[in-house]
Amino acid sequence: MNTEIHPMHKIRIAIMVSGHGRGSNMQALINGCHTGMINGEVALVIGTRSDAPAIQRAKESSVDTRIISPNRHPDDNSYGQAIMEALDSKKIDLVCLAGFMRYLPSCVVRKYAGKIMNVHPALLPFFGGKGMYGEHVHQAVVASGMRVSGCTVHFVDEDYDNGPIILQTPVPVYPEDTPETLAARVLEKEHSSYVEAVRLYSLGMLKIKNGKVFLCNDNSEE
Amino acid sequence: MNTEIHPMHKIRIAIMVSGHGRGSNMQALINGCHTGMINGEVALVIGTRSDAPAIQRAKESSVDTRIISPNRHPDDNSYGQAIMEALDSKKIDLVCLAGFMRYLPSCVVRKYAGKIMNVHPALLPFFGGKGMYGEHVHQAVVASGMRVSGCTVHFVDEDYDNGPIILQTPVPVYPEDTPETLAARVLEKEHSSYVEAVRLYSLGMLKIKNGKVFLCNDNSEE
Repeated sequence: MNTEIHPMHKIRIAIMVSGHGRGSNMQALINGCHTGMINGEVALVIGTRSDAPAIQRAKESSVDTRIISPNRHPDDNSYGQAIMEALDSKKIDLVCLAGFMRYLPSCVVRKYAGKIMNVHPALLPFFGGKGMYGEHVHQAVVASGMRVSGCTVHFVDEDYDNGPIILQTPVPVYPEDTPETLAARVLEKEHSSYVEAVRLYSLGMLKIKNGKVFLCNDNSEE
Repeated sequence: MNTEIHPMHKIRIAIMVSGHGRGSNMQALINGCHTGMINGEVALVIGTRSDAPAIQRAKESSVDTRIISPNRHPDDNSYGQAIMEALDSKKIDLVCLAGFMRYLPSCVVRKYAGKIMNVHPALLPFFGGKGMYGEHVHQAVVASGMRVSGCTVHFVDEDYDNGPIILQTPVPVYPEDTPETLAARVLEKEHSSYVEAVRLYSLGMLKIKNGKVFLCNDNSEE
């Protein structure tokens, strides 16, 4: 993934959600576009089921939604093709996973290399990987006795919770914390960090080099 | 380790150093006592060799020093006994490891349970354990691609780099960082975090409960 990212126009963002998440990271990105923080617009929200709260919320924000159910596709490749058709039809520049609890098909990850982001509610590469989502993450952090957690915004590659890290924001952990109190504190930082990462991307300021994400201050070639 | 820590007097601190460290954490603790931040005094510095820079520095600060060489002791127990005799003779309340690169004998750790602190230049339990000291730690953090590192002040138990965490202070990691630039940034926070942890201890504000360190605002029993 040595992709150059130089979008000069207002970028077109697709957000992918699944399951029963409230869609608060999705909402933060939509708001970030509305307020002009992000040089872009959320052109599409892709969900796995129509009754997901995030899908309702997207509709209330007048964002186009598309339901692509993995259960209706015989295999990963067919599911991936359906996703790519939706992304292509909307001329999407950037895909943001926001509470998307599934493994994204490899064909999508390969085609959109360097153009898919995710946010994780801990400091990756720790407290990530299979089964580490939602409250499971915060339970593990609290049990570890650590006094610092945080969130990670990263580009998505074919490994789970892997890929070059764009931003990590630390969050204090208090000895009195429960997974719930910690989750609430981290979630706030997820919102602001995700908007900041997409803002930098939308200004063409992120460059992936040797697996690391560098910040560049202009759009000129090095 | 459910030790109650209620020192009401000015605490007497011993600092243990080894090898060729510059003794900057030691110096930070000595300064913290001189300025009154810490309600205590550094009554003894124990080193493993007389030519260590930290030992010279301690002498320049007019702190008593004692050299106890592990090479002159046939086994861990005999080495531990020599350390405990030195600590006892100075009526030490708190032992602070500062660049002490050796495994502290178990008999010392048991006798001074809840009264030995260490600082580690990363966010434990990650980037710790055998072989993870000095530049090795920062090399591993830089290689990980993480954007947050930090330092950890913790009570010492019989496992290496383990024991209840008192404080963790995050430090940003930049993609341009080398192990050296990161080490310098973390070291600054080691100094301030170590002084803060010892300050809290010296005021009787730290309480270990179920393997976690709680902050209490007064010296009264719960």
